[in-house]
Amino acid sequence: MPHRMLRQLHDGDSVEDVYLAASKALRTNRQGGRYLQVELRDRSGSLIGRLWNATEEHFQAFREGECVFVRGRAQLFQGNMQLILTEIHAANADQYDPRDFLPQSEQEVSVLWNRLRELLQVSNPHLRALLNLFLQDETLMQGFVQAPAGVRVHHAYLGGLLEHVVTMLEAAERLFGGDRPLYPGVDRDLVLAGIFLHDLGKVRELTYASHFGYSDEGQLVGHLVLGVELLDEKARQAETLLGEPIPQELLLRLKHIIVSHHGDPASGSPCLPMTPEAMAVHLLDHLDSRLHMILRELREDRFPERAWTEYHPHLERRLFKGQPEASPSATPHRDGRT
Amino acid sequence: MPHRMLRQLHDGDSVEDVYLAASKALRTNRQGGRYLQVELRDRSGSLIGRLWNATEEHFQAFREGECVFVRGRAQLFQGNMQLILTEIHAANADQYDPRDFLPQSEQEVSVLWNRLRELLQVSNPHLRALLNLFLQDETLMQGFVQAPAGVRVHHAYLGGLLEHVVTMLEAAERLFGGDRPLYPGVDRDLVLAGIFLHDLGKVRELTYASHFGYSDEGQLVGHLVLGVELLDEKARQAETLLGEPIPQELLLRLKHIIVSHHGDPASGSPCLPMTPEAMAVHLLDHLDSRLHMILRELREDRFPERAWTEYHPHLERRLFKGQPEASPSATPHRDGRT
Amino acid sequence: MPHRMLRQLHDGDSVEDVYLAASKALRTNRQGGRYLQVELRDRSGSLIGRLWNATEEHFQAFREGECVFVRGRAQLFQGNMQLILTEIHAANADQYDPRDFLPQSEQEVSVLWNRLRELLQVSNPHLRALLNLFLQDETLMQGFVQAPAGVRVHHAYLGGLLEHVVTMLEAAERLFGGDRPLYPGVDRDLVLAGIFLHDLGKVRELTYASHFGYSDEGQLVGHLVLGVELLDEKARQAETLLGEPIPQELLLRLKHIIVSHHGDPASGSPCLPMTPEAMAVHLLDHLDSRLHMILRELREDRFPERAWTEYHPHLERRLFKGQPEASPSATPHRDGRT
Amino acid sequence: MPHRMLRQLHDGDSVEDVYLAASKALRTNRQGGRYLQVELRDRSGSLIGRLWNATEEHFQAFREGECVFVRGRAQLFQGNMQLILTEIHAANADQYDPRDFLPQSEQEVSVLWNRLRELLQVSNPHLRALLNLFLQDETLMQGFVQAPAGVRVHHAYLGGLLEHVVTMLEAAERLFGGDRPLYPGVDRDLVLAGIFLHDLGKVRELTYASHFGYSDEGQLVGHLVLGVELLDEKARQAETLLGEPIPQELLLRLKHIIVSHHGDPASGSPCLPMTPEAMAVHLLDHLDSRLHMILRELREDRFPERAWTEYHPHLERRLFKGQPEASPSATPHRDGRT
Amino acid sequence: MPHRMLRQLHDGDSVEDVYLAASKALRTNRQGGRYLQVELRDRSGSLIGRLWNATEEHFQAFREGECVFVRGRAQLFQGNMQLILTEIHAANADQYDPRDFLPQSEQEVSVLWNRLRELLQVSNPHLRALLNLFLQDETLMQGFVQAPAGVRVHHAYLGGLLEHVVTMLEAAERLFGGDRPLYPGVDRDLVLAGIFLHDLGKVRELTYASHFGYSDEGQLVGHLVLGVELLDEKARQAETLLGEPIPQELLLRLKHIIVSHHGDPASGSPCLPMTPEAMAVHLLDHLDSRLHMILRELREDRFPERAWTEYHPHLERRLFKGQPEASPSATPHRDGRT
Amino acid sequence: MPHRMLRQLHDGDSVEDVYLAASKALRTNRQGGRYLQVELRDRSGSLIGRLWNATEEHFQAFREGECVFVRGRAQLFQGNMQLILTEIHAANADQYDPRDFLPQSEQEVSVLWNRLRELLQVSNPHLRALLNLFLQDETLMQGFVQAPAGVRVHHAYLGGLLEHVVTMLEAAERLFGGDRPLYPGVDRDLVLAGIFLHDLGKVRELTYASHFGYSDEGQLVGHLVLGVELLDEKARQAETLLGEPIPQELLLRLKHIIVSHHGDPASGSPCLPMTPEAMAVHLLDHLDSRLHMILRELREDRFPERAWTEYHPHLERRLFKGQPEASPSATPHRDGRT
Repeated sequence: MPHRMLRQLHDGDSVEDVYLAASKALRTNRQGGRYLQVELRDRSGSLIGRLWNATEEHFQAFREGECVFVRGRAQLFQGNMQLILTEIHAANADQYDPRDFLPQSEQEVSVLWNRLRELLQVSNPHLRALLNLFLQDETLMQGFVQAPAGVRVHHAYLGGLLEHVVTMLEAAERLFGGDRPLYPGVDRDLVLAGIFLHDLGKVRELTYASHFGYSDEGQLVGHLVLGVELLDEKARQAETLLGEPIPQELLLRLKHIIVSHHGDPASGSPCLPMTPEAMAVHLLDHLDSRLHMILRELREDRFPERAWTEYHPHLERRLFKGQPEASPSATPHRDGRT
Repeated sequence: MPHRMLRQLHDGDSVEDVYLAASKALRTNRQGGRYLQVELRDRSGSLIGRLWNATEEHFQAFREGECVFVRGRAQLFQGNMQLILTEIHAANADQYDPRDFLPQSEQEVSVLWNRLRELLQVSNPHLRALLNLFLQDETLMQGFVQAPAGVRVHHAYLGGLLEHVVTMLEAAERLFGGDRPLYPGVDRDLVLAGIFLHDLGKVRELTYASHFGYSDEGQLVGHLVLGVELLDEKARQAETLLGEPIPQELLLRLKHIIVSHHGDPASGSPCLPMTPEAMAVHLLDHLDSRLHMILRELREDRFPERAWTEYHPHLERRLFKGQPEASPSATPHRDGRT
Repeated sequence: MPHRMLRQLHDGDSVEDVYLAASKALRTNRQGGRYLQVELRDRSGSLIGRLWNATEEHFQAFREGECVFVRGRAQLFQGNMQLILTEIHAANADQYDPRDFLPQSEQEVSVLWNRLRELLQVSNPHLRALLNLFLQDETLMQGFVQAPAGVRVHHAYLGGLLEHVVTMLEAAERLFGGDRPLYPGVDRDLVLAGIFLHDLGKVRELTYASHFGYSDEGQLVGHLVLGVELLDEKARQAETLLGEPIPQELLLRLKHIIVSHHGDPASGSPCLPMTPEAMAVHLLDHLDSRLHMILRELREDRFPERAWTEYHPHLERRLFKGQPEASPSATPHRDGRT
Repeated sequence: MPHRMLRQLHDGDSVEDVYLAASKALRTNRQGGRYLQVELRDRSGSLIGRLWNATEEHFQAFREGECVFVRGRAQLFQGNMQLILTEIHAANADQYDPRDFLPQSEQEVSVLWNRLRELLQVSNPHLRALLNLFLQDETLMQGFVQAPAGVRVHHAYLGGLLEHVVTMLEAAERLFGGDRPLYPGVDRDLVLAGIFLHDLGKVRELTYASHFGYSDEGQLVGHLVLGVELLDEKARQAETLLGEPIPQELLLRLKHIIVSHHGDPASGSPCLPMTPEAMAVHLLDHLDSRLHMILRELREDRFPERAWTEYHPHLERRLFKGQPEASPSATPHRDGRT
Repeated sequence: MPHRMLRQLHDGDSVEDVYLAASKALRTNRQGGRYLQVELRDRSGSLIGRLWNATEEHFQAFREGECVFVRGRAQLFQGNMQLILTEIHAANADQYDPRDFLPQSEQEVSVLWNRLRELLQVSNPHLRALLNLFLQDETLMQGFVQAPAGVRVHHAYLGGLLEHVVTMLEAAERLFGGDRPLYPGVDRDLVLAGIFLHDLGKVRELTYASHFGYSDEGQLVGHLVLGVELLDEKARQAETLLGEPIPQELLLRLKHIIVSHHGDPASGSPCLPMTPEAMAVHLLDHLDSRLHMILRELREDRFPERAWTEYHPHLERRLFKGQPEASPSATPHRDGRT
Repeated sequence: MPHRMLRQLHDGDSVEDVYLAASKALRTNRQGGRYLQVELRDRSGSLIGRLWNATEEHFQAFREGECVFVRGRAQLFQGNMQLILTEIHAANADQYDPRDFLPQSEQEVSVLWNRLRELLQVSNPHLRALLNLFLQDETLMQGFVQAPAGVRVHHAYLGGLLEHVVTMLEAAERLFGGDRPLYPGVDRDLVLAGIFLHDLGKVRELTYASHFGYSDEGQLVGHLVLGVELLDEKARQAETLLGEPIPQELLLRLKHIIVSHHGDPASGSPCLPMTPEAMAVHLLDHLDSRLHMILRELREDRFPERAWTEYHPHLERRLFKGQPEASPSATPHRDGRT
């Protein structure tokens, strides 16, 4: 039975489904009654569930952070939907698909993947060999197409890493590729390969099977070093395959792009970008992540009647949407100036 | 008689021409002899000139920073060209063209100007009216096509501002324009107009008639405020012309792009970019200025036999050019790893 | 009927009045009872109001942030005053005066205004003409005498901007004016005019009709640029009126004071103060805002029995009031040192 | 009757004891019932106490922050222990020992004190005289063996300052003392005396009789200046005693160690360490405080089943404990790499 | 014979006098000739002296930094005055007055001292007793009226500390004293006493007998701690004299002013100002030092024909003097705007 | 013939040897004479060499940075030794040993190497296997015992890296090893192995065959990433050798020590230290490098008659040596205080 998204529930709907129990509490009142209050989540949003006349057994039947099977009924309360439960307990792993609980890219993974393969055409034979080895590594690519680009900041959803890389490739092709490249001194092949590699370590840095987080090695060494290790591994395979090593300097230029792509030490890169291509990848990464955050914030804004979005903690600002057309702004200074 | 560039002088050439005297000194030796030493410059470079048996009158015949007429002969000395002078004094204004002493864009101004007019096509009628008023302001545009984009840092040559703006327009058109814009939420017309306006205040901030520097108002209020003042002036003209004011919010969005384009207060912008278009202009400005500096540094590098450029004080780094092919690098670790 | 301030209510008082509903919640208990809990505010303070046996209709009868008409009775509970409500719904605009809900200067606006006019006597005829044009602009001055000097930090009440400017003028007159100026190289007239202008853009930057906040242009361009635009407008009027322009350099010096008065880029000024007068205005602004915050914090302190104030988030410190006389401090080290 | 620690209570235990009332609230429900909820603390931890059918008198019978006598019974509720109270009121000062409510060093004070005296053997006679005067000042030493090393950050418990100093002395002896000092240019005697003195001002800076906080002089001048004042006092006594002053330069070197031990102005030291001994004390202080925080955080970790500790606000990081052995980590990338 | 200042020498003057030899060099030429080149200084300025046909003995006859007796003749050379020497050797201490080589306040020390005593009238008896003890300490006051306020930054001349303190006292009296104090919550007596004390430690921190520098204790503990030590000493004397101690809190408030007057840790104050008086002293100190630097830079400017001063390394800016009236500025944008 | 060190030359000595020509210039005078001036260096110091009557051929006979054969005579001039040359030209590679031109550790490499092997005894078998593989890699170890620890900052001489590592191992053994470890929660084996590995990437990051500098990969990826790559290589070898992989978590902990040992991102570490051992290695690295710089600066001080060293640009301070005993300091304040 397919999962019913929380956002699609209507007042009065019966529910028999699995959700993530983000938190739980056993509450009491003076007349002997206790009730269990749970925050339920899936990737569409979250609701409060309540089970009246709850016992300690109900409370102990599942842990926070676990997926739970619930039975109950949706009810509108104080303008919000809630779930009145009659049953709740830990779910079995075969009762649900973990991805129902994680946000996903709005774009089709297969479309993005095909676009990536189209864009990632390079003429340098050593780069081509290297890229092919990556693209043929199924386990790695399975991670690559699923991984988010981050836990919270930008592209924080399944497929986010792929989407981020494809947009950057597209921008790079437009600026540095084609017949009339805008900056002829920048090596287009190296930029494209560098874009593909720059965040690849995130496949191992992040965890995204059941929730978004960091792996141990993600926290202890970080995706820059992990990316270099992945590249070293493929370079060794390429040497075996081609019968000759990838040229040292080419490999060094790729590693440099990975290691320097955050732009400076304070942002987490041990080296400053010191080649045109490293600078190009850093700048495109910055451009795509900033624009993506801003456009997403505007698209997902929940208060169309306001001229400004909520404060965005990572961008550290609110964004201007403009005064709604219907309501001609009447802030005092405007009156005053007529 | 056209100016003969310093870089084109050969050993033994006779010289009768005007150069900029960057510095002067009257030097002496124990045998009663004194000689005058002058640093001569034009936009191709600089040389040392020496006049033997000089007198106090020679020394007083011109000031530092002035253009001087010189007569003499080119001579190779210690691997460098120098000028042995027989005559030197201040030149008259009609003896030279000030632009011979200022570096210039490698691109034709007329080509850049035409490309600007092609790219600056917008469909929003108010923006179009505003842009036309700017493009028809001949005095302003005369400054715009001559001004450098900066005194030292990037595009520091005549025509540099125009070149910087045209490249940014080109990049914007490729990323935000056409049938398949990469970030559909970004208003292409507003970005293009914003790019045109963002540095326009530099026409008044900088001086570039005889040398590059800052005007009084350039230092005391800066090109951001000057740009807003220029826009206010044109908006008033547009209102008269169109019979209706430019919509407040449109004007505000343009001013915001100007005021926020340095990205944050520490970089000189009183406001953070808070619209997608302001962020886009800021990011493209950053991208073009950084890539321009890097590519120019590599192109003008004077030591092809070295793998690294000199230290670049503004980029605060050296750039990697790669080991010259003829000299297979033999750094110790490479030997050690074979 | 005049508004009855929340701080003046006593246990048992009947209430029929309008207050600002800062927040609302419909709470429930297991016996079927629900109650509505509201935070009510006016400029004297805030109280919790409760309406027992509330319905969804009560909850929907007003929005958060709106002014509401309430009927009920004051009641002391757990050491705090609360309001037990019998009626609550949105108020009509003609039922209240918005200023009852905004804090106000403790000083009379008319007194401050007269003092401003006394202090703002300058002998430079161009400055006098400019200042007169500002003082005669009734719409602008209406804003000027009402505006706060900030939303939160200092002088954050109606009339605060005027009070801040008058105190700075007074300090400037004492230090730079009179027969025995302390720093003879500082132009007293320019400082006084600069003080008047430095924050004038706040009249348009801030909103203060019903609550304190920022206007769109306040956020998008900021009060520095707005101040320059106001000055440009008056300078154009002055030129028409006088038949000659305000001298360029005088105007530039005034703009420079406005643009540089925050002291440095990181604090929001694109330029550093580069004239004695710009530095003087910046320093007096800093001096008045800091002392004002400190003295207000001490005056409004609510715990006379403690030696220290609460932590002040903007000053980022607590302030020392001194040990209350009655309680001879007995911290261990003092005992130990006798 | 000795105090019964909160952490030692079991379900059903009767309680008649004194605890610190950290906070109190009188809560209500619709059926006329009110209950008092109190957070009780001692140095072993904290519990929630509830007194059903409470009155305003119960609520007024004690203040927050005061020690209270309570009678009641321990009860397990929702996995946590709580106290159901039948009586609660302010306790008399003779009913309890304040130290039951402050955390304490796990090491015996007398053991630490003896170790300090063993380690603090110096051969320089002036240093020995000075140190003896300190060690014989009973009032001061009473504070020294009780004081914490800080209010929150490290060694924040009774005896913490002594423990911190003894560990630093031990490290100094191993690195700079003995027959084979690791850095022969560092004066071991001066380092040991400097370690003893560096934080001695904390005895007066902090308060630790009933709770941890700062004294007035602690906040207004700080422990660096207080330490210099203590040293000045003893130097005067030594001069009287010895009939000759402590050599100026020796005294200056000691004061310098005190004043510079935070390492730089931004960390609170007006001077940078400019002698080997001042640098050594600064570095050992840093080393001991960091390692102490880290090891304590790991030792007190409450979730052995997790690989990482909670976020530590002062260290600004989480710490890696390692994957628990029983649960072979199955993060996706590891599966993927087999 | 009084010292003849270097700035007063004319072409052809004979010279027999003592100057400071800032640097020396023995230079050579191919014809066997050597000459000695010396930079000579006094408080009016510096000149280059040259002794032709010099020997190693001439070179060894004095050290750099020493005062030397010279005989010779002034000569104009290349627009600058130089001294052609016939004799040069180290001077005896009785041949010169060290103060001829140190810059001095333009104001009379006796006038400043009298003004200080007039301004330093306080009504608080304990403060009065303390201040009198300071004013009666002749050795200390002898240093106080001579000391500069700094080595390089502001008031860097003999009498500079006194001048700085008197100007601050004057400003404080105008703002906080009299019948109509501008900030009634600030204790005028405490501010005046705090101003007198805030930099008093500089009397011991700096050396100014023969040149400006730092004493050992100046570098190792700094003038904040030295100031507290001076205050402790006087407080002990006052206790003996008055038969009762200065009240602890009053003393603490004074120490706090001294310790916090740099404003924050990064500027060298271990504590933030936490009383109105500490904040007032800090702000007046900042105001006077900044205005003093700016006005002095403008007054001593050597290029009246330029609109801007030279770059000021401590202020980190150039200052705007204004376009000279005779030369109507003709920067391009002005032409363009007519 | 062994190289004669520049520092050992005496007035009048004949010289026939090879030195490094750090810079060269052909200087002229009016009488037709030219002379060549060269700065000659070896690891003992540097001298100026002069060849009278030089020709363009002399000037072209070698390049700056090259080793040159010189013939001539030492001569004392103006208190400094110089070399009067009769011959100078580029040397052949077989005429000199490059190490004569690089500074060296004062300690015997073989002694340090043996001490390293003694100290590096660990009981964990996997660590032991790994360390053995490193120690048996002759090419790598040859670099390790030669490499400096840095180009300029600390231990900047041949053998400096080894010396730095051995001192850290010694300190670690004393603090964390033996029967009575000072911090029992720190894993001694892991710390020792981490110390050995933390800077090992410097063997490849730096060049030290003929002069100290950075390799290409040193600049482009840095010694942290290079260290991880070296470890990965040995871990693969260990797996082959042992028939089982090094445990993932152990390897991860080692990589974490390498990657985090600079302490934070701004200092060049992408990760903060998050294990006790990573923190311990970071702190010991900091302690040894700081103390080493300070003690070396004091040991190499050239002015025993001064109380302070010269300004140290990396430490950003001068160091206090103390007043020389013979000259009882007579700074003014001391007189004043008797």
